[in-house]
Amino acid sequence: MRSSATDALRIDGPRLWQRLMMLAEIGATPKGGVCRLALSELDRQGRALVVGWARQAGMTVAVDQIGNVFLRRMGRDPTLPPIVSGSHLDTQPTGGKFDGNYGVLAALEVVETLNDAGVRTEAPIEIAIWTNEEGSRFVPVMMGSGVFAGAIPLAHAWAARDTEGRSVKDELARIGYLGTQVPGDHPMGAYFEAHIEQGPVLEQEETTIGVVLGTLGVRWFDCIVTGMEAHAGPTPMAMRQDALQIAARLMLEVVAIAGRHPPHGRGTVGMVQVHPNSRNVIPGQVKFSIDLRNHTDALLDAMAKDIRETAAALSETSGLPIQLEPVSSYPAQPFAPSCIDAVERAARALGLSHRRMISGAGHDAVYTARVTPTGMIFIPCKDGISHNEIEDAAPADVEAGCNVLLQVMLECAGLAA
Amino acid sequence: MRSSATDALRIDGPRLWQRLMMLAEIGATPKGGVCRLALSELDRQGRALVVGWARQAGMTVAVDQIGNVFLRRMGRDPTLPPIVSGSHLDTQPTGGKFDGNYGVLAALEVVETLNDAGVRTEAPIEIAIWTNEEGSRFVPVMMGSGVFAGAIPLAHAWAARDTEGRSVKDELARIGYLGTQVPGDHPMGAYFEAHIEQGPVLEQEETTIGVVLGTLGVRWFDCIVTGMEAHAGPTPMAMRQDALQIAARLMLEVVAIAGRHPPHGRGTVGMVQVHPNSRNVIPGQVKFSIDLRNHTDALLDAMAKDIRETAAALSETSGLPIQLEPVSSYPAQPFAPSCIDAVERAARALGLSHRRMISGAGHDAVYTARVTPTGMIFIPCKDGISHNEIEDAAPADVEAGCNVLLQVMLECAGLAA
Repeated sequence: MRSSATDALRIDGPRLWQRLMMLAEIGATPKGGVCRLALSELDRQGRALVVGWARQAGMTVAVDQIGNVFLRRMGRDPTLPPIVSGSHLDTQPTGGKFDGNYGVLAALEVVETLNDAGVRTEAPIEIAIWTNEEGSRFVPVMMGSGVFAGAIPLAHAWAARDTEGRSVKDELARIGYLGTQVPGDHPMGAYFEAHIEQGPVLEQEETTIGVVLGTLGVRWFDCIVTGMEAHAGPTPMAMRQDALQIAARLMLEVVAIAGRHPPHGRGTVGMVQVHPNSRNVIPGQVKFSIDLRNHTDALLDAMAKDIRETAAALSETSGLPIQLEPVSSYPAQPFAPSCIDAVERAARALGLSHRRMISGAGHDAVYTARVTPTGMIFIPCKDGISHNEIEDAAPADVEAGCNVLLQVMLECAGLAA
Repeated sequence: MRSSATDALRIDGPRLWQRLMMLAEIGATPKGGVCRLALSELDRQGRALVVGWARQAGMTVAVDQIGNVFLRRMGRDPTLPPIVSGSHLDTQPTGGKFDGNYGVLAALEVVETLNDAGVRTEAPIEIAIWTNEEGSRFVPVMMGSGVFAGAIPLAHAWAARDTEGRSVKDELARIGYLGTQVPGDHPMGAYFEAHIEQGPVLEQEETTIGVVLGTLGVRWFDCIVTGMEAHAGPTPMAMRQDALQIAARLMLEVVAIAGRHPPHGRGTVGMVQVHPNSRNVIPGQVKFSIDLRNHTDALLDAMAKDIRETAAALSETSGLPIQLEPVSSYPAQPFAPSCIDAVERAARALGLSHRRMISGAGHDAVYTARVTPTGMIFIPCKDGISHNEIEDAAPADVEAGCNVLLQVMLECAGLAA
């Protein structure tokens, strides 16, 4: 049920922006970014600030055993599952003000707007704050939503330790977020997450809203090429077993393979280690990472097969052993058509430029999509940069994305009769 | 003047081998190598052992201001400049038993053999022990011979410091090798150096003696390709500025350029640094080393021009800035035809398999060649490996190279009437 009154409802952009800037002071870095590692004292302070605002807005608080926080605004019908929106408050060590934080505060701004307008929804509305999305201090990444969705065992997550040996469970207890609710034992009607794009597409195309269709699947490999280290001077070219020369050809192939699997195929070599890495020594071994992405698992399988065959052929012709070791993989995750359509409808109704797109990065929404209908709303970020202290977004886009979220939440939660 | 008696003279292979093994105990590493850094306490012990043997063999000792040691066996005519042979006693941190050490002890073995046979030469014979050839603890490399030849100013060499801040001059004084002779103020009639090949050619061709024509010139560059770091997931292939993809193409070109300048052209990329070197981040900058070698400076110039033009073209087509910064260069150094011929004659007379070849690595002989007629004698080393604890050479080859040196020294010093 909708009404022309709620169709005209708009969030308070300056309030949302002000809260983003206040939250960014917790863990603020000299270069304008934020360092608020998961389950640190600063994470506790960030959570306390947001939970405090939510309490002032009349919301109740529940915490599960992995520290996920659910802030609830009651609906008319307490038997309906809540319509949930949120993201995470932890950041990278040199993170920005928007990644995750925007999704949480946009959800809070939706609630504030409904409160201000005296709008009552049929279903409850909840804000989710997921624990340790970034994975900087504790691996795996997207830990809270992963445990919630049953993808990561609670015991495994609890046992994860940071470089100083402190466990997730101990740190949850220390900061007061070791809750009692069993993760996942928390029905949801739908989940939406507003997020900066973390890529350049919206900005370059001057489009305000990204209607996210799902996330790319990922296959990570380590590739090790073994040659024979030797002096650069006395070793004639024909007698060399130069591991880097073979590795470089494979590095070019990683990108070529992405081009052979359009339009969403992506291939990246991000990390290279050369041994012994000395100016006048022919490299004896080169290890490098391979990151392959695509929007269906079948295409990912094809890309993985392609790199395996290319490596095998190159090993055959060069005589150098090439190992290709799987490191980890994430399946492609499509979002619910009903949620995708709802986001698109809202953007259109608001007169905002929008386009359908795939998310190349992982988000908590990837895991919620396994257990509840899920959608995402992207807004542009400056130069496509994130995970960086210079991460930035325009106030108008921040506001626009939140208005889309408001309409989507209203549509899904329904107006109380 | 030669005689059938001296033509039949042979060095004492087991004695030479035993001394190599004794010397290798000073700084011996658990893996069978040697760590005897220049001007360390172990360097002092190594020098003391060899100088002690030389004194027992009746030789006099002179030390210059950069710590080069000249051990002299008198000839009949004290006005003739000495015929000199030697090398260095310092090693790499994980060096072997033969590099440098062989050249010094082979020269000593020549003297012992002449003493045993009661052979008197016309000109004096000297053993040179050059300071800090390796350059591991103090740069530049080949310091002692470089100062001797006037290529490195004494004050510059004295001022060089190790990572703990200790200077060459202080360390020379501490180990008792800050001599008074002005470097270079020491005439030589000729200089010969016996050395392991440090490459695979002799071993693979089953040849015992390398008649060295000179050394390859070297040009070192640092290449920096600057792209834009970005998330591997959300950044479509067409919007990337992947520094590693362009760098990899240039790395392949470094080797291709060597192939375009045969037969002695060599091209090596030994060192690579990727920034930020993270698995899921498109590299924003890649820095790598370029090592180009050839046997004439004109060919080196052509290779350097080739890599500059290739980099410029690649920068043009990719739009990514590519910097090519000269790091250092060494000119190609041909040896004296008279010395080359003498080595070849001796190998032939001894019935040893031999071939003419270029040295790809630097040696003290590169600097002596600037001030006196110079030649080198190479022997095979196992798998072409040096600067490594597993560096090895066969006793028969060690002996053969020393016999060639004996004949060459005899020919140049002449038999006393």
